[in-house]
Amino acid sequence: MLGSTHGTLTTDSRQARVLACGEQRPGTAAPERVADLDVGGRALHADVPDLARLFWPGSIAVIGACDTEGRPRTGITRQLLDWAGRVGARVHPVHPTRTAVFGLPCVPTVARLPEPVDLAVLLVADPLPVIAELAGAKARFAVVLASGNDGTGQAGAGTRERLAEAARGAGVRLLGPGTHLDAFARFREDLTGPAIALITQSGHQGHSVFALQELGIRLSHWAPTGDEADLEAADFLSWFAEQPETGAIACCLEGLKDGRAFLLAADRAARRGVPVVAVKAGRTEGGTRPAAPHTGGPTGADDVVDAALRQYGVIRVDALDELQDTAALLARARPPRSDGVAVYSLPGGTGAHVAGLAAGAGLRLPTLSAGKQTELRQWIPDRLSVANPVDCGGHPEGDHRGRKIIDALLADPDVGVLICPVTGPLPPPGDRLVRDLADAAEETDKLVCVVWGSPAGTEPAYREVLLGSSRVVTFRTVGNCLSAVRAWLDHHRFTAGYRSAFDAAPRTPSPSFRKAQALLRPGARLSEHAAKQLLRAYGIRVPREQLVTSAAAAVRAAGQVGYPVVMKASGARIAHKTELGLVKIGLTSASQVRDAYRDLTGIARREGVGLDGVLVCQMVQRGVETTVGFTHDQLFGPTVTAGLGGILAEVLRDTAVRVPPFGEEQARAMLGELRGRALLDGVRGRPPADVDALVEVVLRVQRMALELGSHLAELDIDPLMVLGRGQGAVALDALVVCR
Amino acid sequence: MLGSTHGTLTTDSRQARVLACGEQRPGTAAPERVADLDVGGRALHADVPDLARLFWPGSIAVIGACDTEGRPRTGITRQLLDWAGRVGARVHPVHPTRTAVFGLPCVPTVARLPEPVDLAVLLVADPLPVIAELAGAKARFAVVLASGNDGTGQAGAGTRERLAEAARGAGVRLLGPGTHLDAFARFREDLTGPAIALITQSGHQGHSVFALQELGIRLSHWAPTGDEADLEAADFLSWFAEQPETGAIACCLEGLKDGRAFLLAADRAARRGVPVVAVKAGRTEGGTRPAAPHTGGPTGADDVVDAALRQYGVIRVDALDELQDTAALLARARPPRSDGVAVYSLPGGTGAHVAGLAAGAGLRLPTLSAGKQTELRQWIPDRLSVANPVDCGGHPEGDHRGRKIIDALLADPDVGVLICPVTGPLPPPGDRLVRDLADAAEETDKLVCVVWGSPAGTEPAYREVLLGSSRVVTFRTVGNCLSAVRAWLDHHRFTAGYRSAFDAAPRTPSPSFRKAQALLRPGARLSEHAAKQLLRAYGIRVPREQLVTSAAAAVRAAGQVGYPVVMKASGARIAHKTELGLVKIGLTSASQVRDAYRDLTGIARREGVGLDGVLVCQMVQRGVETTVGFTHDQLFGPTVTAGLGGILAEVLRDTAVRVPPFGEEQARAMLGELRGRALLDGVRGRPPADVDALVEVVLRVQRMALELGSHLAELDIDPLMVLGRGQGAVALDALVVCR
Repeated sequence: MLGSTHGTLTTDSRQARVLACGEQRPGTAAPERVADLDVGGRALHADVPDLARLFWPGSIAVIGACDTEGRPRTGITRQLLDWAGRVGARVHPVHPTRTAVFGLPCVPTVARLPEPVDLAVLLVADPLPVIAELAGAKARFAVVLASGNDGTGQAGAGTRERLAEAARGAGVRLLGPGTHLDAFARFREDLTGPAIALITQSGHQGHSVFALQELGIRLSHWAPTGDEADLEAADFLSWFAEQPETGAIACCLEGLKDGRAFLLAADRAARRGVPVVAVKAGRTEGGTRPAAPHTGGPTGADDVVDAALRQYGVIRVDALDELQDTAALLARARPPRSDGVAVYSLPGGTGAHVAGLAAGAGLRLPTLSAGKQTELRQWIPDRLSVANPVDCGGHPEGDHRGRKIIDALLADPDVGVLICPVTGPLPPPGDRLVRDLADAAEETDKLVCVVWGSPAGTEPAYREVLLGSSRVVTFRTVGNCLSAVRAWLDHHRFTAGYRSAFDAAPRTPSPSFRKAQALLRPGARLSEHAAKQLLRAYGIRVPREQLVTSAAAAVRAAGQVGYPVVMKASGARIAHKTELGLVKIGLTSASQVRDAYRDLTGIARREGVGLDGVLVCQMVQRGVETTVGFTHDQLFGPTVTAGLGGILAEVLRDTAVRVPPFGEEQARAMLGELRGRALLDGVRGRPPADVDALVEVVLRVQRMALELGSHLAELDIDPLMVLGRGQGAVALDALVVCR
Repeated sequence: MLGSTHGTLTTDSRQARVLACGEQRPGTAAPERVADLDVGGRALHADVPDLARLFWPGSIAVIGACDTEGRPRTGITRQLLDWAGRVGARVHPVHPTRTAVFGLPCVPTVARLPEPVDLAVLLVADPLPVIAELAGAKARFAVVLASGNDGTGQAGAGTRERLAEAARGAGVRLLGPGTHLDAFARFREDLTGPAIALITQSGHQGHSVFALQELGIRLSHWAPTGDEADLEAADFLSWFAEQPETGAIACCLEGLKDGRAFLLAADRAARRGVPVVAVKAGRTEGGTRPAAPHTGGPTGADDVVDAALRQYGVIRVDALDELQDTAALLARARPPRSDGVAVYSLPGGTGAHVAGLAAGAGLRLPTLSAGKQTELRQWIPDRLSVANPVDCGGHPEGDHRGRKIIDALLADPDVGVLICPVTGPLPPPGDRLVRDLADAAEETDKLVCVVWGSPAGTEPAYREVLLGSSRVVTFRTVGNCLSAVRAWLDHHRFTAGYRSAFDAAPRTPSPSFRKAQALLRPGARLSEHAAKQLLRAYGIRVPREQLVTSAAAAVRAAGQVGYPVVMKASGARIAHKTELGLVKIGLTSASQVRDAYRDLTGIARREGVGLDGVLVCQMVQRGVETTVGFTHDQLFGPTVTAGLGGILAEVLRDTAVRVPPFGEEQARAMLGELRGRALLDGVRGRPPADVDALVEVVLRVQRMALELGSHLAELDIDPLMVLGRGQGAVALDALVVCR
């Protein structure tokens, strides 16, 4: 939602709870400062909390600590003590009646804590009064595990708001309610290299990613954000993106508390080149009831979620297995040296099959150079393929030749990825193949992937060699392998060319804005004529036209506009003009104009339609009918759509969407997503359309969305006629609804 | 390819190497008999060889047997002896110089074999002369392992043809060349229940399916068909479909030797309700070089392969892991009692997420009845979902309640499938959940699926309980689980309503055929007028029209046809009439007709276009522009396409295809596949089109494809104007090219 409290857009009237880029807010609440906002009063930089003391506190209060065997809190207390020991934190149990818990001295209330604490973990049934007391303990963070007495449900909006308010009052940042002990889980410390940082809302959803450590993949943090009364996924995303150990961020999200905050956080990760992989529930519900978001927040339209995540390079996946496999690859793989994929297999059928699937998944399989093929021929019999896919038939993998083939492939400058499908339990050559791959992977910075085809997964080559390798990325399905490789290449392409749209977002109103204000009619739908004036104010071309209220004036107007003309009834409440017969096209003479005026006013009278006049418009030559407009998404605020008009709109609803701010490149990418895109390029001898002009209109509509979003509920140019290349685009009609 | 040797279609002139339905050909070549053929001379029934003696021979000759340690043939000989022992076959080694092999008496030549053999396995470098000798040994089957000396390449077309001819001459059926010992692999004999029968072309591609036995899934046969000189995948498909132990047939195919034969075999499986799951390479190559088919045969267009397989209920999958998972489910699962899917999980987030994905995959998740929800509430706390997805929060799975919940779900008549996602390594309740699921699955005929989310797969609950269960179907990815469940439900829906299109295929020419023959011009393209007469001969409506050769005749014709008229230049070689200005529409008077005649003949003269006259046609009222036609596929012969015309055709190439024979239901299904289908139903207040008439045209074009396929290279009605409901469809133009 746009801030709608300001009447005119001056900087000092905007809400200003956002810090400037680069500055970090300490764990305790910072004083509010005027910050960098866009023209619509929305933040342009993530508000990154410093979460170091949440994950590595010096001192912890466990409020409601217990050591009586058999009670749930005892297990939790023990786990917290273990964790505190690992991170080197002092622990202070708090309990009204105990004097010691697990041998540690216990104080009766928060007020009696012996020192300020970085972190207070609340195990009490009613956390609200305790949070208020935390101000006195100078606590930086509070963690509320349960949502209620039974610890199973989700906190309602009221509970969340009361907790958030109490935390703000006490100057603490709060994790939960409904969070889990997973944040304090025992991570393997023997693993090295870039790590996965994990964000989940439900704790359980992260277990499978956590288990990647058993495959040697390091996990640095787990943030189970629960019901997100205060700290939300976006806060952790921003902070994780800045930690040097982070190789990839894996998210499992049921909902987004604040769409803008999430995008600002994703922007931060994109600037730093940190890949973000996310399951965001809701993509595939296909009309059934969607998962209730954990945060209780708005869900937004899923196509908008999809577009928004893509704008910031977030890799969206559907299922947890895809999250695991993709995050594991992204955390392990170094930047690609080439986007070329080589497929190598023992039998040719397997290689050709996987190569075909890889090409179908959009990967590039270069034909290997003649020199490379000659090199491979030293070890591979004549009848087998050395072009890519490469297959050795099996025998060369039984001796020294196997490793030489793999090394030769990895040494090829046009090969950045080696994918090796292994179809099943193998005779000795296969075991040696796997060992060769693991060894070769240690000595290259290129990506080596194995798809292990055997369903059992008990084979020593798999369990001991592949899962024991820190460099080979092993998959159980071809599909997950190919989509993860694709995601990795896409990620590096994306971040290499990344320029944050937030940097270029307009901060001050354009000169158009003042002209536009005069045309707004709060709460009303504008007439076609007024809507077009609004477009004209923003530099969008509309036909020459005049609004007239007599037949004589219509004839004069037609003379000035130039024959042939179109005439339309104009009024604030007219919908379905064409269906009602309120549009007359191709009028070529004064008498036709007079007749048309009589007809239009007659129909309007008969249909009871109020007119503010009749529009006499220039008739625009043929072009490609498109639509451009903006509306408001519950989660992300204003969204801009562009699509094809006419029959394609009716049959296919062929539109693309973007969340502002976005630049010209994204506007062009939108058009590329249209299934009927070929119409713009010119099909079957039609001339290509003026795509540049269409892009310009999309960007001007975005400007309107940003500047007028709080004043307009909806704007829809339909049709926008895109003429031939170099000839522009003309808005023939528009719907504008003011708030 | 259609048989093109017959000039007129009389039964006795057709090729007749096909047996009537139900009869089986013995292992040795049968005498050729007149069989049941369609009007185009194509077989209507699979030619099913009796393969029993190939898989269970009473006696085997091993030609080129060897027992010298270290030689490849020694290993093969040993493996064959082991296998012969298991199937109870007598083995006769054949070797020119040895007197015994592995202690068995050895004869020097095939001619000296002590008894007729069911099976001769040829280990010799040049099998051709040996095959000729097999007639004398009365051998039924010959197996040729290698393609050439090094055993790695594929046999060329010449080699295959020579081998096939030799086999025909000797009266043996031949498996190979390029087959593997996999046919004689050691299958687990302790497994019971319906089995998977496996067909591969490359042997290696089957290893992962073979390994399903480690998960307790029975495998009955493996046919590695290799280069298919004689026996092909279709032969094994037909025969496996008739074996009582077959629960599912899994195929991994690089190419199809004969498209028609494969469909006839698939039809046999469909009639018997046996599910067939196939990887058929080529679906996703995306423009790169496709896998060379193992059989060296034609590849055909992939959309045609896709349609053809779907017509016979073959479940096409992309990767080997999908083949494994889908075949395993289909072999295990009993017929569905309901298509309702229930999702049950410990934590709610996981259940909601998987339920969303399931709905997106087209599965039905019924909301459980109030009574069932009340029942579940006995064991599940109030705040958790009992509607479906059902989540218990974890605790009830720690005791007796867990099993009660599962039993209650499986007892629901609206639940046919229970899917339980397990997100990772679990505390004790999870172990108990898995045990409860395995126990419950033993006592129900409903399908129980688990998606095991932990990437390691080392957990005892997974390894010992799930993989040890003969009833729970366990998956490693959500995607493979959902698509396998969907395939299972689709398979049973398909076979329940299956009526073989081959039974209803026309066997004798229609009365239209004789009329049509007079219009054909071998090797030429027909004029528009002639093409329309051909359509009319098959009962397809065309506009009233007359072909005229003078302006005066044109005016007379217009009067008879009725104004307004359309006039078009007509000639055998005119393409792009509209672009050349050779079409005039909406002519309303004699003078316009005269002018138009002059214009058209003038343009034709100027452009050097030969005319046979000018068509004066009835102008047809507005409708939906479609196209219907047929062409020839390299693999499957004639194929019928239907699509939308006009701008949708230009931009989207929105067409669907079917391989004849097919019935009305498939013709309707074709239209349902069109992305612009809404146009036919009527969008935005347009009247719905006469879909029945369009279906009728599709069926009539199919009839033309069947009867005239050997005479016509191509037929394309474009546009076919489909009028409003009840008003029919009119072919406004047509392209017909004779062979």
